[in-house]
Amino acid sequence: MNKNSSNIMALAPNTSNKRETVCIFGTGDFGRALGHKMIQSGYPVVYGSRSTQISNLIPKDAEVLSHAEAAQKAAIIIIAIQRQHYNFLIPLAEILHGKVLVDISNNLKLNQYPESNAEYLAQLLPGSRVVKAFNTVSAWALQSGTLDASRQVFVCGDDVEAKQMVMNIVRALSLTPLDKGSLLAAQEIENYPLQLFPIWKFPIFLSLGLTAFFFFYCLALDVIYTYIYERNNFSFFIAITIPNRVCPVMALILLALVYLPGIFAAIIQLYRGTKYRRFPDWLDKWMLCRKQLGLIALAFASLHVVFTLVTPMRAFVSWRTSKGIISQVLNNKTEPLSNTNAWISDSYLALGILGFFLFVLLGITSLPSVSNNVNWREFRFVQSKLGYLALILCTAHTLVYGGKWFLSPSAYKWYLPNIYILSLIVPCAVLVVKFVLIFPCVDKPLTQIRQGWERNPKHSE
Amino acid sequence: MNKNSSNIMALAPNTSNKRETVCIFGTGDFGRALGHKMIQSGYPVVYGSRSTQISNLIPKDAEVLSHAEAAQKAAIIIIAIQRQHYNFLIPLAEILHGKVLVDISNNLKLNQYPESNAEYLAQLLPGSRVVKAFNTVSAWALQSGTLDASRQVFVCGDDVEAKQMVMNIVRALSLTPLDKGSLLAAQEIENYPLQLFPIWKFPIFLSLGLTAFFFFYCLALDVIYTYIYERNNFSFFIAITIPNRVCPVMALILLALVYLPGIFAAIIQLYRGTKYRRFPDWLDKWMLCRKQLGLIALAFASLHVVFTLVTPMRAFVSWRTSKGIISQVLNNKTEPLSNTNAWISDSYLALGILGFFLFVLLGITSLPSVSNNVNWREFRFVQSKLGYLALILCTAHTLVYGGKWFLSPSAYKWYLPNIYILSLIVPCAVLVVKFVLIFPCVDKPLTQIRQGWERNPKHSE
Amino acid sequence: MNKNSSNIMALAPNTSNKRETVCIFGTGDFGRALGHKMIQSGYPVVYGSRSTQISNLIPKDAEVLSHAEAAQKAAIIIIAIQRQHYNFLIPLAEILHGKVLVDISNNLKLNQYPESNAEYLAQLLPGSRVVKAFNTVSAWALQSGTLDASRQVFVCGDDVEAKQMVMNIVRALSLTPLDKGSLLAAQEIENYPLQLFPIWKFPIFLSLGLTAFFFFYCLALDVIYTYIYERNNFSFFIAITIPNRVCPVMALILLALVYLPGIFAAIIQLYRGTKYRRFPDWLDKWMLCRKQLGLIALAFASLHVVFTLVTPMRAFVSWRTSKGIISQVLNNKTEPLSNTNAWISDSYLALGILGFFLFVLLGITSLPSVSNNVNWREFRFVQSKLGYLALILCTAHTLVYGGKWFLSPSAYKWYLPNIYILSLIVPCAVLVVKFVLIFPCVDKPLTQIRQGWERNPKHSE
Repeated sequence: MNKNSSNIMALAPNTSNKRETVCIFGTGDFGRALGHKMIQSGYPVVYGSRSTQISNLIPKDAEVLSHAEAAQKAAIIIIAIQRQHYNFLIPLAEILHGKVLVDISNNLKLNQYPESNAEYLAQLLPGSRVVKAFNTVSAWALQSGTLDASRQVFVCGDDVEAKQMVMNIVRALSLTPLDKGSLLAAQEIENYPLQLFPIWKFPIFLSLGLTAFFFFYCLALDVIYTYIYERNNFSFFIAITIPNRVCPVMALILLALVYLPGIFAAIIQLYRGTKYRRFPDWLDKWMLCRKQLGLIALAFASLHVVFTLVTPMRAFVSWRTSKGIISQVLNNKTEPLSNTNAWISDSYLALGILGFFLFVLLGITSLPSVSNNVNWREFRFVQSKLGYLALILCTAHTLVYGGKWFLSPSAYKWYLPNIYILSLIVPCAVLVVKFVLIFPCVDKPLTQIRQGWERNPKHSE
Repeated sequence: MNKNSSNIMALAPNTSNKRETVCIFGTGDFGRALGHKMIQSGYPVVYGSRSTQISNLIPKDAEVLSHAEAAQKAAIIIIAIQRQHYNFLIPLAEILHGKVLVDISNNLKLNQYPESNAEYLAQLLPGSRVVKAFNTVSAWALQSGTLDASRQVFVCGDDVEAKQMVMNIVRALSLTPLDKGSLLAAQEIENYPLQLFPIWKFPIFLSLGLTAFFFFYCLALDVIYTYIYERNNFSFFIAITIPNRVCPVMALILLALVYLPGIFAAIIQLYRGTKYRRFPDWLDKWMLCRKQLGLIALAFASLHVVFTLVTPMRAFVSWRTSKGIISQVLNNKTEPLSNTNAWISDSYLALGILGFFLFVLLGITSLPSVSNNVNWREFRFVQSKLGYLALILCTAHTLVYGGKWFLSPSAYKWYLPNIYILSLIVPCAVLVVKFVLIFPCVDKPLTQIRQGWERNPKHSE
Repeated sequence: MNKNSSNIMALAPNTSNKRETVCIFGTGDFGRALGHKMIQSGYPVVYGSRSTQISNLIPKDAEVLSHAEAAQKAAIIIIAIQRQHYNFLIPLAEILHGKVLVDISNNLKLNQYPESNAEYLAQLLPGSRVVKAFNTVSAWALQSGTLDASRQVFVCGDDVEAKQMVMNIVRALSLTPLDKGSLLAAQEIENYPLQLFPIWKFPIFLSLGLTAFFFFYCLALDVIYTYIYERNNFSFFIAITIPNRVCPVMALILLALVYLPGIFAAIIQLYRGTKYRRFPDWLDKWMLCRKQLGLIALAFASLHVVFTLVTPMRAFVSWRTSKGIISQVLNNKTEPLSNTNAWISDSYLALGILGFFLFVLLGITSLPSVSNNVNWREFRFVQSKLGYLALILCTAHTLVYGGKWFLSPSAYKWYLPNIYILSLIVPCAVLVVKFVLIFPCVDKPLTQIRQGWERNPKHSE
């Protein structure tokens, strides 16, 4: 067994500044890119290939040998071959015995095969030490050296020593290895580069759908209705006025949707009297995307803030202001300051600002590097206490802003309510139920259930 | 010694996709939650319990045995028992010899016991390999699968191999292990989940106190004074006007308080002529919470910015503007553009914007992931050079804004100065002393003291 | 060989809460600071020094012995000596055999010596196990305990066990060790603390230069021209008006410069028909600082946003507004709302807001902690798709804003174009060429080249 020899090779203090030889099976795109990069980092590279004619695509300083010869020259062999061709390695099992085989393959679809490629390789060659690595790095990025994105290389494998050897190579290429544990993690690592924001999908589609609905709702009431009944062409409302109605509504509803599943969960647990039964699937999925819903809500809130702040710069607004002043002058009457109006305008602005401020704070604490520096108790304090406070402030902001129109018939064009009335339904419902849940007579049993100590009925499955 | 056997178990390439059995002592809430999660991740789980009657709360696929039987089935035993009951493990010492014991316990208070629970366990069972882990994870989070917060699991222990085995389990549960070193770190790890923003406490209380003081100060001068002497009801100033006076004052003072301890430290070192004597305790504590003071200052500055930008939308402001224009019209005189006024208004706005911009930059570089990517020299450049520049710009902003009122008697209602005059005391003092410290004749000895090369007097302790 | 004994020392469960003794060679500033900190963390410390007279600068609880005696007391020896004096260690080679030597030295210049200090030390003492560590930590920070900056300690070395021992010490000092691999990484680690934002240098100088050019260009056209030909003193434009012209221009040009090198690269690859030849050096460097260019562009865009939002608060603007209203009143004619103007004003504001929103999103995803949580496919989606969308929106924003002036002769003072016309050249060029590159007949061969499968001509080097 040449296990020991390979170890010595790897761990001996290499005072001569020479790195150990690495063998690459396969001269495809990724094999060549990786070889290039390794030669740059000082590794002697040997390619194992069917045809040993030196193609001019292969890095100049690399040797090209037959698979068997190449494998014998190195303790680490990178398998830059597609999974379908792994079979051809079986005859080489003897030579590959004890060697570190690095599986860098990717699939075209999520969970394409029952077992991961790396586990399949380990099954084919039980005497070799298989390590999964490098599959999350793009050949193009390796080649061009412009690794702006993640420098993390996920590594997994059952042999700790073999993993260490591969992680040393990863570090030598100026990448950051991340140990993901045993080879069982290979499936997850192989699925990783195929994903495109999987947990964001539902929140994004939900908010796109709601946005479209509210946009056309506003378009009908604010532009079309006005055009039909009042002969005013306010088509330019599409650019700012309507977006600035839709954004706050979306922000408020999505923020409420962040806290709604928690309310459902509490009710279900109270009803069942235990926390040891799974929630329905939809609730589980909903709870898992709360962070994403909250961040999208924050995006809408930010847009609302900028759209609002831009108001005085709009031609329409400055025209309306001048018109108001000029009509006051021409009628020779100056309106006195209405204290009530001043209070309403100032307090809804202040409520909105404070709500947005807390909202941004929630967003900052959900940055990975910040939330990693916060313990569970602190995280719950910020996300639950401050989050509810933000929801209360934002709901109050909307209530104060729109309060006077609730009972005014002019707010019900075509008998439809204005959208901020619609936007208040979910947040108000969440706040009312939460208020009930805080009462000691409800809160106490719930806390006990969550600590696992209590369950009302004895149930057996 | 079954140390070797357990290793082989852990490290053998498990081609049959089977994970090693894990034993859990204790069927309490956390034990059950962890068992659930482990079974989901493919680990066979055996519970060790006094009563081996299978409770229906225990995960279905788990076996329940006596402690001794359960321990024999696994190389890793999770001790989900409270510290008070650790004694009962002593009779099992023989069976637990060489096994990996995972201490997951938490205390109710910081530093409740002289030694950490994990060290206590290691003392009770010197033949076992104790690893501290999982105590920072909440049972509720494990159960519901909604780990929005930190996925980090702190792990420590004296046996490297045992630690590796536990870290592999942590990874398999989709959590991130973080090696904190030897078992001496257990105390710190056990204290961690009990903290609620400890370094934030002083800065937050300080700023709450100052905010309250300035708020009532402004209330007295701007609302009550006006009501008493001018019969004007400006009570709505509470919503925006007063907060927008308090916020910038707080931001400026807190920013100056970030740099004040550095000044004190320099003076103390110059006076003592050495850096090898400890600072007074209050100064040490102050220096440790500078980052937090700075971030709270940034929060106040951001609120000030939004409160200011919202100005033109306020009913009061638009009423005042119209009144001004109308009175110009009615008096038939148009005021010409005052170049001085234009300069003052534009320059204090510009100074404020640049100061705030640098302030935000300082905030971004204090994000953990950013400051980790910056070396000591770069960090000092940003936090010291750019920080002082921000302080200079913000002080200048306040000076230009309020300059004209300094000597005006109307600014001294009830003989009290306006709050922006108060706000300038600390920053101006900091800037003046810093200016003196920059002079070569002062800077040179200070630099030498900080490099450890010089001390004026020979002192012996 | 005492390798085994040292291991046992390190790994034995230290139930007596005693840490292993650490020896420090050298009583200079850093040696003393490190010793202080280690004693605080519970390590017995022995200093090795030429003169064994106890100086009162050395921590009280530390022993001071001759080098040989001190070395024998510990398994880990920290070499707090400058590289020039490493020679004196050669006579001690016998005693240092098998010991862990921690090289903490730094140089004064980047790449001062052909090999790193740690490698030099390893060559001098081939029997010792050299580990590089602690050089990125400042003595002042260790001393004062105020480690606000990075707590990361880079560690590298050829002996895995020795590295583990050093990393345990690092953790015990509440710092975070980061394994950088073999001793070959020492050069990089030694260069690290000497850097001052190296990749930021070119982008910052470029933007400073361009900013200065545009500032004086505007100064000439807006202030000096107006003063000479119209006798108006608009010198206060220097504070806000001109910066708010320069900032958006800079933001747009720098954003375009982020995407320009990608366009050049595509053209070069199409022309050459291969991706396996290196890009010219200037292009490589340019591509490596794209992220920095983008972040500076974001800074300019943010300044532009705040400068714009502040507009209604400016004395000049409110004077201009009043003048407009008053002249309308005096002429007794009220201008009707121009639908076209309302459309133009609202749509350029909306385009700008959306563009800035995407821009901020790009900025957030380039935070290290966020980009590490994103795979290559997701990163490319955000930075390429959303980035181009931001560029399109910002270009459209500028076009709509300035559109009406393109053909107006008053926009060409002194026959020079207004700067937003200049600012449109690069982004429009980028967008047009990108539009061409998207066509299938161009995109298909490019994709093939980037996948490495195709090359038009056979070239040999």
